[in-house]
Amino acid sequence: MKVQALLDAVVADSNGLVPAIAQQYDTGEVLMMAWMNREAIEATVSTGQAHYWSRSRQALWRKGESSGHTQRVIDIRLDCDGDTLLLIVDQTGVACHTGRRQCFFRRLNKTGLETFTPVEINPKH
Amino acid sequence: MKVQALLDAVVADSNGLVPAIAQQYDTGEVLMMAWMNREAIEATVSTGQAHYWSRSRQALWRKGESSGHTQRVIDIRLDCDGDTLLLIVDQTGVACHTGRRQCFFRRLNKTGLETFTPVEINPKH
Repeated sequence: MKVQALLDAVVADSNGLVPAIAQQYDTGEVLMMAWMNREAIEATVSTGQAHYWSRSRQALWRKGESSGHTQRVIDIRLDCDGDTLLLIVDQTGVACHTGRRQCFFRRLNKTGLETFTPVEINPKH
Repeated sequence: MKVQALLDAVVADSNGLVPAIAQQYDTGEVLMMAWMNREAIEATVSTGQAHYWSRSRQALWRKGESSGHTQRVIDIRLDCDGDTLLLIVDQTGVACHTGRRQCFFRRLNKTGLETFTPVEINPKH
């Protein structure tokens, strides 16, 4: 199985996890960073939908399973050291749980941190 | 100092580290992912050049200090949880130690992992 080639090449940390960056395929936006384990990689490859491992809940998590804001995976890339994944995705709706398109909505300006990305969708609590 | 606002907002892991994604400002390419600690963040903000923390060497590392392939930092962004940084940079030369423009040069195709990015510069060993 092709997924085995990826699993063999991934160098996970001591918790069996590897960081996964999600990038929007057409705009190039970096949407978010989350963590994957073997199970998340297998589920992502087999379904074509991004799955991650929730460290706080210690559970497999399909992106958008409750919000509907899913990520269709177009490409899965691995870096030189094998310890970081880059998912090229097509994001439905917003990637961030705050209702913003992407999670990196704060930046350092001359006086401190500013929020520069608007809330697009009212987040469900 | 403005850097204090960033340091106060960063949620580091148990080793005092936070993942930092470097993205090329004009093309949107995700170049690499490395780790920063407080010292690396301070050095990056004060010099405008990307600094990371080498986990293998346990040392502060200015990107390109030996190769000349430096990263001028245009913007520093922080995600919703405060546990991942996104550096918007202008990369001189190549980001990857293999001599490729970016580190994510392997991707999963129908049969396994393929290398799809050429070596641009002969890496120094």
